[in-house]
Parts: sequence; structure tokens; C-alpha cells
Amino acid sequence: MIIQLKHNILSEQIAAIKSELDKYKYSSSVVNTQKNSYLVAIGKAEIDIRRIGILPGVADIHRVSDDFKMVSRKWKIEYSEIDFGDKVKISASELAIMAGPCSIESEEQIMKTVEHLKTNNIRFMRGGVFKPRSSPYAFRGAGIEGLKLFSNYCKAAGIKVVTEVMQSSQIEEMYPYVDMFQVGARNSQNYNLLDALGKVDKPILLKRGLSGTVDELLFSAEYIFSGGNEKIALCERGIRTYEKAYRNVLDINAIPYLKDKSHLPVILDPSHAVGIRKYVDNLALAGVIAGADGVIFEMHEQPEIAFSDGQQSLNFDESAKLYKRLRDTFEFRKLL
Amino acid sequence: MIIQLKHNILSEQIAAIKSELDKYKYSSSVVNTQKNSYLVAIGKAEIDIRRIGILPGVADIHRVSDDFKMVSRKWKIEYSEIDFGDKVKISASELAIMAGPCSIESEEQIMKTVEHLKTNNIRFMRGGVFKPRSSPYAFRGAGIEGLKLFSNYCKAAGIKVVTEVMQSSQIEEMYPYVDMFQVGARNSQNYNLLDALGKVDKPILLKRGLSGTVDELLFSAEYIFSGGNEKIALCERGIRTYEKAYRNVLDINAIPYLKDKSHLPVILDPSHAVGIRKYVDNLALAGVIAGADGVIFEMHEQPEIAFSDGQQSLNFDESAKLYKRLRDTFEFRKLL
Amino acid sequence: MIIQLKHNILSEQIAAIKSELDKYKYSSSVVNTQKNSYLVAIGKAEIDIRRIGILPGVADIHRVSDDFKMVSRKWKIEYSEIDFGDKVKISASELAIMAGPCSIESEEQIMKTVEHLKTNNIRFMRGGVFKPRSSPYAFRGAGIEGLKLFSNYCKAAGIKVVTEVMQSSQIEEMYPYVDMFQVGARNSQNYNLLDALGKVDKPILLKRGLSGTVDELLFSAEYIFSGGNEKIALCERGIRTYEKAYRNVLDINAIPYLKDKSHLPVILDPSHAVGIRKYVDNLALAGVIAGADGVIFEMHEQPEIAFSDGQQSLNFDESAKLYKRLRDTFEFRKLL
Amino acid sequence: MIIQLKHNILSEQIAAIKSELDKYKYSSSVVNTQKNSYLVAIGKAEIDIRRIGILPGVADIHRVSDDFKMVSRKWKIEYSEIDFGDKVKISASELAIMAGPCSIESEEQIMKTVEHLKTNNIRFMRGGVFKPRSSPYAFRGAGIEGLKLFSNYCKAAGIKVVTEVMQSSQIEEMYPYVDMFQVGARNSQNYNLLDALGKVDKPILLKRGLSGTVDELLFSAEYIFSGGNEKIALCERGIRTYEKAYRNVLDINAIPYLKDKSHLPVILDPSHAVGIRKYVDNLALAGVIAGADGVIFEMHEQPEIAFSDGQQSLNFDESAKLYKRLRDTFEFRKLL
Repeated sequence: MIIQLKHNILSEQIAAIKSELDKYKYSSSVVNTQKNSYLVAIGKAEIDIRRIGILPGVADIHRVSDDFKMVSRKWKIEYSEIDFGDKVKISASELAIMAGPCSIESEEQIMKTVEHLKTNNIRFMRGGVFKPRSSPYAFRGAGIEGLKLFSNYCKAAGIKVVTEVMQSSQIEEMYPYVDMFQVGARNSQNYNLLDALGKVDKPILLKRGLSGTVDELLFSAEYIFSGGNEKIALCERGIRTYEKAYRNVLDINAIPYLKDKSHLPVILDPSHAVGIRKYVDNLALAGVIAGADGVIFEMHEQPEIAFSDGQQSLNFDESAKLYKRLRDTFEFRKLL
Repeated sequence: MIIQLKHNILSEQIAAIKSELDKYKYSSSVVNTQKNSYLVAIGKAEIDIRRIGILPGVADIHRVSDDFKMVSRKWKIEYSEIDFGDKVKISASELAIMAGPCSIESEEQIMKTVEHLKTNNIRFMRGGVFKPRSSPYAFRGAGIEGLKLFSNYCKAAGIKVVTEVMQSSQIEEMYPYVDMFQVGARNSQNYNLLDALGKVDKPILLKRGLSGTVDELLFSAEYIFSGGNEKIALCERGIRTYEKAYRNVLDINAIPYLKDKSHLPVILDPSHAVGIRKYVDNLALAGVIAGADGVIFEMHEQPEIAFSDGQQSLNFDESAKLYKRLRDTFEFRKLL
Repeated sequence: MIIQLKHNILSEQIAAIKSELDKYKYSSSVVNTQKNSYLVAIGKAEIDIRRIGILPGVADIHRVSDDFKMVSRKWKIEYSEIDFGDKVKISASELAIMAGPCSIESEEQIMKTVEHLKTNNIRFMRGGVFKPRSSPYAFRGAGIEGLKLFSNYCKAAGIKVVTEVMQSSQIEEMYPYVDMFQVGARNSQNYNLLDALGKVDKPILLKRGLSGTVDELLFSAEYIFSGGNEKIALCERGIRTYEKAYRNVLDINAIPYLKDKSHLPVILDPSHAVGIRKYVDNLALAGVIAGADGVIFEMHEQPEIAFSDGQQSLNFDESAKLYKRLRDTFEFRKLL
Repeated sequence: MIIQLKHNILSEQIAAIKSELDKYKYSSSVVNTQKNSYLVAIGKAEIDIRRIGILPGVADIHRVSDDFKMVSRKWKIEYSEIDFGDKVKISASELAIMAGPCSIESEEQIMKTVEHLKTNNIRFMRGGVFKPRSSPYAFRGAGIEGLKLFSNYCKAAGIKVVTEVMQSSQIEEMYPYVDMFQVGARNSQNYNLLDALGKVDKPILLKRGLSGTVDELLFSAEYIFSGGNEKIALCERGIRTYEKAYRNVLDINAIPYLKDKSHLPVILDPSHAVGIRKYVDNLALAGVIAGADGVIFEMHEQPEIAFSDGQQSLNFDESAKLYKRLRDTFEFRKLL
């Protein structure tokens, strides 16, 4: 059960609601987000929710039978949107396109990528500066200095920076240079990081775990939301299966499922979901038809010489074709 | 290596080619299909294939580096099509739509379904009469009598019958009433059945195994093809993973992969791939955008009372909407 | 519910029991095995089973809440044993050891293997003569002639022949030469084959599917049992997962699970379960400690030159060591 | 290639070695552990390693063809052991047994558990005080105060504390009270945490990821080792598969594999690997036979009322029986 509280609720009114819930053996947690305050109440007894609804300080009340609560569409049926300012949004009514290299490598690479994005009117650039690598001896990213350069060029071009944060202690240092913090697949259930991102007032791109379930993804989003941050986009990026013909299997079922269960926007990462350049395009379009609100893919001026993930990165020409195809497909979807 | 033989080749000419291949320690198998004769030669030595190409009786010759041979696009780059007569085809240039119940249940059910399909100009009806069921005590299908009824109504309406065959001894009895033999997921590597279907001159719809790899699917097709039957469509129907939120995971990666590796047509079964009615529509469309040549889905006049798989079957109205959306999406894909 | 019928029950008495079950909307199936007759009744209503128990012709009656029935320990708590005559058994009180090559290759190979087994007092020899191979161009086994040779040498040495049957039409031809019919992983849900083996009066070694669940394995056994054959051993042979370091993952959980849920004996195949020779030994012993009633493994005089599966086959010396370790471990288990 | 450096090596000698490696285009990283200093050199060229071996300051040199280096047995063939003082070790020559509750719940619970362990001469107690829970509203553990209590009672009894650390910022606060830091399955590829634990001089129990590969586990260990901490034990705790009959599948293959590939000790967690109390015992013994150096399992005075994981926890009596069986099995293994 989710009880939305009035902005001017008094602490003794909250106590009164909690005490009423105690009668039914409901446990309750206060959730203060940057937008609102809520009580999330969990229990088994049948309650006539009007008995809670009439209490002073209650703005609204909903039963939520799902195990996740704040991210459920059983609470909020309209889809949430994330506003980045500058007329940049992630929402159900326009397609968010995010492209860029796996790793930030050099100033020249940033410049060329930003120029390409600007030419094509793409408003998000992805790029890793802290890279989770399976070997400790591999290139681990350009670090905070790389991020500053990345941010400088993007700001000048009106492009939003999407980059991965790997632990809570990095947040403060990264904050001025990041428009959207990405949580990577390996950290999808790093609850301390999720808690910390709940305290941040910038949007989060939350990737599904390497073999995370869709419900685990929603629970991870619930951590961020209940920590205080409502600006979350879910990202399907392929799951680990027995199939060896490709890097992962894009779980396209997840797209209608997540759109059905949650009000949060859903972004598709086709690059990691298949790991083979020539299939990225078709899969991106399929994701849009299936209901995705955005697509994030890996792009590199010269994929052959990329520091990482070159085999799944599109070059600039391929990317430009894909933008057009994505936009056409999104327009077509509206007419279906 | 695939060596296509001239139709009038003499047996001593075949012997001469084999003997030349022996020199390079290549093993070779003659493949006689209903269309052509071939030698499939497998070995490791580097050969100048022109030395084979000039031998008498050789019509054409191709290197095929894939482990599967006759089904590979490295041999035949143009996509194969399957002609059912009556202007019914499975091909890359029009979308094949197949719908019908999981199980044939009654004459009335057949009549209503056929009427619905005819009204909507759908040329294939699916329906099981021999049902593989996990429990031996469950309904095992209407059997051959059900198939005869099924066939009668379809013939009268110009609709092609697609139904599952479970073992080679059933083929002869079923033959007059079937337009396309389906091999179910549990029999996808039943090599004796595949061998037997190689001897049949009717098209085969070959489903991927419950957790079959895409390459295993291609090898199973190679069995049918090398047995003599070139009329094969591959069917992606979801794979078994750790995810419990849906019945299976539609492996949408498989669609561009199979279209890239093989010249055989690819059909998507979204019903089994997700197992939840409300997601079937979106996934079917996604499959078309990703490159599928056809879609097969479960439909029932009253899904609530279906003998099996009701939870994933669309009703007639939902199906009619889906036909239109599928056709629109296929037309849109051509313009992309 | 399982109702065991008296041997001299009259058909009108069966009808009377069925009619009583009808009152509670229970569907019922007669199961005639080579040992007994039963009625398997399935329904939802609460019944006082004594009302059925007192009917004429009823020998015994048990509730079975599992979905599988005849193979459940909820019906039969003592473990079943399979008697091959000649003092050869599969049972919980002695360890059944089965060894032999993946494929029967030559008379000399058979002779040497049989001699080795006899020397070591091993009473079962495994060996495939019909081989399911992913490529249609690969060696498909020595066929029925190979089986006859295999059988001749084994009979003379008092050794039981365990070999795979791939389709029901092979059963009759193979019957005189086989002591235990193996159902391979790819045919684990080939229900027509399972039905046919239910009519056979020789023991069946039923392998789990490539990615079959343990409950699917039990349901497949239920097919054989309800077809009439009670002599079934279940075989865990590894499952397909995302892990690429070995061929499959031995699901050791399955051993206590199957021993807990079913009265059928459980055999472990460590060779396919890992696919790497040097780990076979440890895994075989682990299976015995976990409760397996037998072990079947691949062995070859010269694994390096085996036609198939050489990388996972032990040689004769390694095998002899393993027999001793297996027997010692089984004795140790009794003392635990 | 691993180059062990002399303790008194001069920085110009290190520079000379690196410069020699540069000639062959080998990248090199200095690894300073609490025991030794090494250069890990990675490259493709063939080198006669004696050319490096003779350089001043080099103590020893080994080729390591595995992708992981410091944790490989290709470098160090003898198994590593971890010494906790007080005659408590994890090593190949005695079995380490760790038991305790999923969560630390109360002082009384700690007292009773410690008393039980002491009576049974068990030297490690496990217990979580920071709990990773899928729902943010669930009990998240007793925290640092719980840890202090836990530590007090254990210290008095000569028992070592094993508990999970979830992020690097917790390490300092936890340090005085912890004898072995556990990295949980969800953090198995949290590289920042692994880096931080590399700087700690206390042993680490590193769990395999939810669906981590065995090689990913070794790479995660490589992070800790290359960060400076050689005291690492690997923990197999079951993997995520399609099988729904149990919580996870114990990957018993991993035990001989890890003992073959790495010199680090291997601990089995049968509780999470199956999730069902009655199978824990058999699986623990199987793990010992397969080669595990230790077992960690969940135990609770009254599993029925445990805050978490009660369904897989043994009670005190069951645990006492298991200790004996584990020790007997370990002694038996030595004789095999």
C-alpha cells in the first residue's frame, strides 16, 4: 500500500497513520523523494483503505499488490518522464537516442563524436570513464580528467552526458560533469550504490544485471526511488544464457513486461545485448516496435581501433542511418 | 565444400569426383534432394576448387566454411522460398501469417476458425492433433480423425494445414491431410524423425529446441535437407532461461542471425516465446521488424476454455487487429 | 491418487470404481504394468479415500500430491530395484557400475573392453551403435551388426549390454541383443518413444534432457511406467548452462532430490556432465556420496583415437582405479 | 608471465626489467602484496624467459598462459593456505568448517550459537550484519553494533568471525571485529570493493557471482591479489539456471576445476547452492569428496523463526551430525 502524504503533513499526523497501520500489523517506511513524501506499508491483513485515506495529512492512497511498490504501475498508471532541461526528455512521447563510445579515449575522439552527434541532432552522449574490466591489468578508463573533457565538449553542444558510476564514493566528484549516472550490469544489485544514488537529484540509467530477472531490476529501481530519487530509467541490455553464438540474448520480452508493470521509462541497449555490430541495427528497431522509450548504443569513429567493444560498435555512417531508421520506426509505432 | 552435380551426371563421373576428393582426404556424401544432386565434401586441406570445378558432371562448386553446409548462405546467398501452390508462399517478399488453436478440439472449433481466417485472408491454419504433453494422463490430441476434419475444412477454404508430427511412423498416415509438417521443440534433435522428413516432399516447419542453440537448429535443418527435402522453414519459439516472469525468452537475436547465416525462411512463434497473451502482439511486430519472414501464433475463439495454452492464445478480435498490424509493419519494413 | 487393483479384479469392479471416482469429478486411467494393475485418478475434490478403499477389487490406495504419480515416493516409499538376473541388479544396496566406449567401433575394441570389464568384475557395458550426432555427415554408429557383436561378447562374459535406442521402430530389431535400453538426452521428451518403451519388458535407462528439469525427467519416467514398464533408472548427465568452462554442469542437487521424490534408482553420468577427463573421477565419487545408486562413464582403450567423446573418456588404467574408488566410497557411505 | 622480485630490489632494477619487457611489447604491472613484489607482464611475443630471469633483482620467473595470473597454478603449483593464528587455518590438509546464521539477530542468538560451535570445536562462525536484500523495505541487518557483539563473543571463544562487507567505505569500521571479510555473490564483480580489499591484511572469502563463470571468479580473485592481499578463499555457492526445483544449482564441477586451475583454497556453500534444508547435508559431503577445502553453511537454533533463509538452515542437532560426517568424509578422502 502506498500512502502519499500532504506536503504540509505534521510529524504527529505521520505518527497517527503509522499507529493505525500497526493495528493491522503493517510495517511502514517513510519515503521522501525530491518530489513528494509517501508511506510504503506492507502487511497481509485485509484493510478497508478508506480508513487510512480519511486520516489527516493523507493526500492519496493506493493498494499495490506487486512486491515492488513505488515503481509499480499499480500505483501510478501514467508513465513517468525525466526532464533534463534544454528540451531534452526521456518520455513515452519521444524517442531518446544515446550514442557514443564504450570508453572515452582522447580529446580528439570526444570532439569528433560530439560534432557527429550535434550534426545529427542527438542529445545524449554515452561514454565510460571508469570501466569495469574483468582483468585488473586491462585499461580501466580515462578517469575524472577524461570526464571533465567529456563534459566540457558536451555542455558546449547542448548534449547530455551519460556515464557509469561504480561506487558511491565517486558520486560527489563526478556530480558536476554528469547528466545521467549509469549503473552498470555488474552493479545492478549493489544496494549501497543504489541507496547513495537515491540521494542524488540527477537521473539514473539502471542496467539489468548480467543475469538479473526483470523483477530484480524493478527492485533495484525501488531502492533508488525509496532512497529519494524518482528520476530512473530502466535499461534492458541482454541476459546471460547457454547460447554461445552471441555475447548475450536480448530479452525483448522484458520491454512490454517492464512497460506493463512499471511507470518508469525503458531504454534498450542492443550493443551489449548481441555483441555483433551487424545485428545491432535490426535489434534496436525491434526494441522500439516492442515499446522501448529509448535506445543506447555503442559508436566509434573507427571501431577497429577502439580500446574496448569495437566488435559491437557502429561507425558514424552506420549510426547516422540508424538514427533515421529509429526515428521513422518510432513515428510508425505511433500510427500502429 | 558443396559440389552441385549436373542432372545427367554419370555414376562413373561421381566416382571420379569422389576419387579426386580422396586425394585431399576429404570425406564426401551425396545429397539427392527433390530438386538437385550435390556432393558435400568435408576436409581440412587447402584445395584449389577449380581443380574440382572442371571435372565432368560438375554444375557448380562453392566453399562453405560453416559446419552446416546445404543450409548455409555461404553456399546460396539468395533466400529460399517455399511454394505451397494456390499463390501461397513462404518467402522474403511477403509475410506468412499462421494462426490457429494449440489443439484441434472439435468440428465446430475448426469451422469457426477457418471462417475467421478466410474472412481475414489468412492462408495458413495451425493446430495440433498429436500433442506432446508433459503428463501422460493429459489430453493428447484429437488424433488422425481430428486431422481429417481439420484438413477437410481447410482444403475447402484454400487454407494450408500446419500440424505437428511426432514420429516417423505417423508421416504416411498424416501425409494426405498435411500441407506443412511441424517438428516440435522437444523433437528438434530427433534425428530419425528429421531423416524421415528428408524423404517427404512437403514443407517442414522446424522449431528450435527448448534450449537448442541456433547452430543446432541449423544442423537439424541440415539433416532434413541432406535427407532430400529442401523445403524447410526455421522457427524461433523462445528459449529456456533462468527468468521466471514469462514462459520462455524470445531470442530475437536469432532472427537476424539466422537470416544472415542461412538461406532458409525464418518464422517467429511469439506465443510460446512469452506465454502471456497481452505481450504476444508487440513481440510479433518486433520479430517482423527484426527480419522474420512469417509469424505463427496461437488463437482460440474463447481462450478461457481452450484445452491447452489458453493463457497465451489471442481471441478472434485480437487476432484480426494483429493481422493488420503485422501487414502494416511488414510494409513499413520494406521502406526502411 | 493411486489405486492398486487386485490381480483377479473383474471388469465390472473396475467400472464401479471409476463410476465412484466420477462422482468426485476425478478422471482416471488404468495402468497395467508387467507387475500390477492400477488406477491413476486425478481430481481436485477432497475425498475420504477409505470410501474407495473398501470397494471390491481394490488392493491398496494412496494419495499422491505430486503431479507425477506412479514414480512418486509418496506412493511407494521403499526404493525400487531392477533385477537383470545372473545376480546383476540396480538397487540402493549395491553400486551399479557401467563403463564402455561412447561408440562401438570394432570387434577388437569390444573384445578388449569386455576382457577389461570381466577382469574388474564390472557387470554392465555401455556402448552406442546408433549415435545421435549434430552433423548428418558424422559417423552415425556401427548399427545393428555392431550391436550383435557387442551382445555376443557380453553374453559370453556375463556382462549386460546398455545401449541407446533412438526411435520406437528400432526396438524390435534391437530387443534380442539389449539388456537395458538407454533413452538419450535429446529424446528425453520423445513421448512416442517413451510410450513404446512402456510396452517393453526390459529395463530402461532414462537420461535427463539437455536442459530438462528434474520434474520433466520424472514425468518422462511416468510415461514409461504408465505404459507398463516399471523397470526404469533415472540418469543425471549434466545440464546446459551459461558456463563455458566445461561441456555441461553436473546438477548434483538432482541426486538427493530424485532420491527424495521418486522410488526409482538414480544413475550418474559424470562423463557428459563435465566433458573433461581429469575431472570425471572426483565427480563420480561426489555423486556416490550424494546418494547415486550407480555410475555410468565413458571409457576407451585409447581415448586419443576414439571416434567420439575421447576428451572425456578414461583409459583402462584410470577406469580400474575409479572402480576401486567408487566401491570404497559406496562402502564408506553405508557407514556414514 | 610473472616475475617475482627480490625484496631488496632497487627501483632502477625494476625500471631495467620493464624496459627489457618493453622491447617485446609486453605491458607490465607491479604487484606488491603483503608478502612479496611481482611484475605481471602481458604480451604476445615469444620470449626466452631466461633473458629476463638473469636480470638483477629477479627472484624467480614463470610463464602463465592463463588469462588470470597471480591466482593461477601455472605460477604456483602448491596450494596456498590461510593462517588465522590460534591454530586456525584454511588449507588443503584440514577441513575448514564455518557455520552460523544468515543474519545476526540478537545477543542471545550469538551466545547460543557460539556455545554450540565451541562444544563442537568449530573455529569459524558466519553471520551477516549488513544484508543485501532484494526489497529495500526488508530487514537489512543488525549493523555495526551487531557486529561488535558478534565479535566479542567469538573472540572470547577463540572463534573467527566471517561476515559480509558490502562496500569499501565499510571496511575501516568493520576491520577490528572481522577475521574474514566475505564478498557476497551480488558484489562478486564489484571491482572497486575488490580493489579496496586488496589493501586489507585480513583474509577474504570471495563468493562466485549469481551467474558468474568460474573464470570470472578467478579474475575477481586476481583483483584482490594484485591489489596486495594474497589471503583469498574462493567460494562456490550455486549458480542460476532454468531449474526451478531448487534455489540454485550447486556447480560441483567448479570444485575440481578451481583446484586444478588455482592455488587458492576452495570453500563450498551448500545452503545457498540448493536452498532446501534436507539436501544440504548430502551436498556438503559431495563437495568434500570432490575436493573442497572447507564448507560454510547456514545454521540457526530455530530455523522456523529465522529472520532470513530459515528454509535452508540446519538446526543445532543437524549441524552437529553434519560436522561429524564432514570430518569423517574428509579423513576418508585422504585414504582414497
